[in-house]
Amino acid sequence: MSKNLTAREDDYSKWYNELVVKADLAENSAVRGCMVIKPYGYAIWEKMQAELDRMFKETGHQNAYFPLFVPKSMFEAEEKNAEGFAKECAIVTHYRLKNDPEKPGKLMVDPNAKLEEELIVRPTSEAIIWSTYKGWVQSYRDLPLLINQWANVVRWEMRTRLFLRTAEFLWQEGHTAHATRSEAIEETEKMMNVYAEFVENFMAIPVIKGLKTETERFAGAEETYCIEALMQDGKALQAGTSHFLGQNFAKAFDVKFSNAEGKQEYVWGTSWGVSTRLMGALVMTHSDDNGLVLPPALAPIQVVIVPIYKTEEQLKEISSVVNILVSELKDIKITVKYDDRTTQKPGFKFAEWELKGVPVRIAVGPKDLENGTFEIARRDNLSKEVVAKEGISLYIQNLLKQIQIDLYTKALNFRDSHITEVDSFEEFKKVIEDKGGFVSAHWDGTAAAEEKIKELTKATIRCIPLNRAEQPGRCILTGNPSNGRVLFAKAY
Amino acid sequence: MSKNLTAREDDYSKWYNELVVKADLAENSAVRGCMVIKPYGYAIWEKMQAELDRMFKETGHQNAYFPLFVPKSMFEAEEKNAEGFAKECAIVTHYRLKNDPEKPGKLMVDPNAKLEEELIVRPTSEAIIWSTYKGWVQSYRDLPLLINQWANVVRWEMRTRLFLRTAEFLWQEGHTAHATRSEAIEETEKMMNVYAEFVENFMAIPVIKGLKTETERFAGAEETYCIEALMQDGKALQAGTSHFLGQNFAKAFDVKFSNAEGKQEYVWGTSWGVSTRLMGALVMTHSDDNGLVLPPALAPIQVVIVPIYKTEEQLKEISSVVNILVSELKDIKITVKYDDRTTQKPGFKFAEWELKGVPVRIAVGPKDLENGTFEIARRDNLSKEVVAKEGISLYIQNLLKQIQIDLYTKALNFRDSHITEVDSFEEFKKVIEDKGGFVSAHWDGTAAAEEKIKELTKATIRCIPLNRAEQPGRCILTGNPSNGRVLFAKAY
Repeated sequence: MSKNLTAREDDYSKWYNELVVKADLAENSAVRGCMVIKPYGYAIWEKMQAELDRMFKETGHQNAYFPLFVPKSMFEAEEKNAEGFAKECAIVTHYRLKNDPEKPGKLMVDPNAKLEEELIVRPTSEAIIWSTYKGWVQSYRDLPLLINQWANVVRWEMRTRLFLRTAEFLWQEGHTAHATRSEAIEETEKMMNVYAEFVENFMAIPVIKGLKTETERFAGAEETYCIEALMQDGKALQAGTSHFLGQNFAKAFDVKFSNAEGKQEYVWGTSWGVSTRLMGALVMTHSDDNGLVLPPALAPIQVVIVPIYKTEEQLKEISSVVNILVSELKDIKITVKYDDRTTQKPGFKFAEWELKGVPVRIAVGPKDLENGTFEIARRDNLSKEVVAKEGISLYIQNLLKQIQIDLYTKALNFRDSHITEVDSFEEFKKVIEDKGGFVSAHWDGTAAAEEKIKELTKATIRCIPLNRAEQPGRCILTGNPSNGRVLFAKAY
Repeated sequence: MSKNLTAREDDYSKWYNELVVKADLAENSAVRGCMVIKPYGYAIWEKMQAELDRMFKETGHQNAYFPLFVPKSMFEAEEKNAEGFAKECAIVTHYRLKNDPEKPGKLMVDPNAKLEEELIVRPTSEAIIWSTYKGWVQSYRDLPLLINQWANVVRWEMRTRLFLRTAEFLWQEGHTAHATRSEAIEETEKMMNVYAEFVENFMAIPVIKGLKTETERFAGAEETYCIEALMQDGKALQAGTSHFLGQNFAKAFDVKFSNAEGKQEYVWGTSWGVSTRLMGALVMTHSDDNGLVLPPALAPIQVVIVPIYKTEEQLKEISSVVNILVSELKDIKITVKYDDRTTQKPGFKFAEWELKGVPVRIAVGPKDLENGTFEIARRDNLSKEVVAKEGISLYIQNLLKQIQIDLYTKALNFRDSHITEVDSFEEFKKVIEDKGGFVSAHWDGTAAAEEKIKELTKATIRCIPLNRAEQPGRCILTGNPSNGRVLFAKAY
């Protein structure tokens, strides 16, 4: 198969868009800004979901489901949150269509079916969930509530890109309620750590944990924790956020509990989410000019086997050897596909599975049968080797683990070599423009300086790293005092 | 705990509504007609999803995700389908809110943010999916497409009831495309059979497979297959449908393929779905005046263990025995909860787990410790027995299987004793009114007779059973000739 993929060097953005479509991950739909997630892309998302869901449950959370719609009056109850999302809302105003009297066979909105109160398609569910929690919480015995929801949300983005920014996207949103401030903060941090663990161990993407500045904070939160990743083009991507909501939503929706002493208090809240955006991060971290590169832990197909043959007889012999291998691999929970299509040549198959990022490709020809070997190719570094049949399953199992580690290490090396400390604004601009990546610099803590830097360089503060050293310095823009470095970058 | 559940005999409908709320399955939300599915209810739905998803994948289907919104022009392309759903659509007309100049802190729809074309919140996804399939199908080699989606849909129902009829509900919708009519019909029947297998084996609900009449058919289908179940109050419930779409959607969206001879043909389609409505069926089939009764295959907690003690020392001793049992049960994949809350008395716990339908309850007190026994209670028939400790895990495993079978058998006996053959309209009315259940009667095949019968009795034709005998007779209403009996019932 011919891939005709734009090279990353030539146009990274074009490469990404083409790859997502050609590798059958997703495509734009006929609905403005909304994507279709194709089966191969969805299979990766399902693997992410399964793993995250397991981690949420292990940390004591349960799933539930809340309405898609939020009545306008409820939406506006937490003012900052409402303000943050008001400009990008899909709004339902009517509940019926009728035949258009002027156009036979066509429909029109029935003006008699106007809703008394408009409904907002949820851009996030704090409002609807906290209005529900009011009924669930009376006493400290009802706390904590540790609830997660897998759902679709809609934010009317003007400029969209597959997975990275779409009007509708899929995500999970955790919403928890606690009796104390410290317990809520602990939960917020715990879930940031769960996200970091997932993204690093399963997606093989290293992340930096940090806090958002006030400007970048979730509308309605007191503090937003985040994990930030770095893409191959030197731009950062926010991979997950966990918000400490303080008592903001409890106050907006009057959610109180009586504590052990019988006194009424407002509940403390958190919310946290990751979305199909992670699919974009996965593609942009590991893939190359030949196509997708998937970490074994999330690959829908981990091993593909391609027979090389001329005659029917040869195919038969190869298949009998391969079938044994297939069943051995399945026994040790490795997902394997035997690509014995007779309609395509091996070269086509190689290119197709390369494009789709299958971590390990095994080729078997008549010579291998003679020698008792398999040819094994790694997708990540494109290396090949011939391996003896004995112990091959174990060999592949270890190889998959090694690939997972190598992908992470490669991404980590790239990321670490793209964190640059600078101490002047000249240097700052130069690094942001020429090298990219994270720039570690002093900042005076004001929104004004942050805004000005963004205006001048398009770089934003990605986070205040949790592990930063307290270190006095001077803001690169204003020269005002700072007590530690923050990470800037251009971002997705 | 006090349950205060209305008895079924007194008011079946009230009993249902109360039970769904008191057992923590779901509740009404602040959004008209939309429900909140609570964690316990959602856990049951997740078990259903997992099983169905496994069955779909085993039969060759893949999951994908399509947009929530359907542009109006696309929605109206298949006229019958559009007509069928037009009267109950949520319609998005605007994409932005702004501050209300007359009410500080309040928001209003921004009249400048009116969409050029209205978007319908999907009531079902044939339109958006077939418009996508157009880009996916060129040749017979691209077929079949075997795709399923787990999603939320919205139908603006005027009278709603938790799970049974809600404005927003969760479901899966399969949408397949085939090269031939016969292959599409085979798929339609296959998925009806998958549904029947799931509902009978996992939900323990017997079903009748049949075809819908033209009146009851899915808007846009050539044939609708269904599975029909019977609730304890004698009303039928449609548990799943599988539609043969013919070439209707292919024609509406111009989806053609070139066949092996290079000729252009329209694609053949199917769609099939089950929804959170099944939760309603589950509740209404098995539960009783004490609360939920859940089949072990779908119970989030299969076994609950309650310690009976007076002193701390006793609790400690009991716990050491119980912990061994818990780990044994977990080893054989039985979901078990040890309810060692010190804040509640055993009686409260018994009532709570009864209300929540946990299939097996084990009680352990000091006497049991002495005798090396457990007291085991079945939720379904409320029987109790004392069982020796040796081999207890295996005993419980078998007991769970037995309960699953017994629930099915009980429901089957009830259903079978509520299929009444009648040969006159007098009899018909009497059975529908007094006994309920399915009434097997001759019908002349006209929509007019069907409509008239509905008007006079509120009974509708639930299905033309697939296994019915060809047998000449006279329509109970008109006396016109009929060639077989159909099943009538009042229905949810």
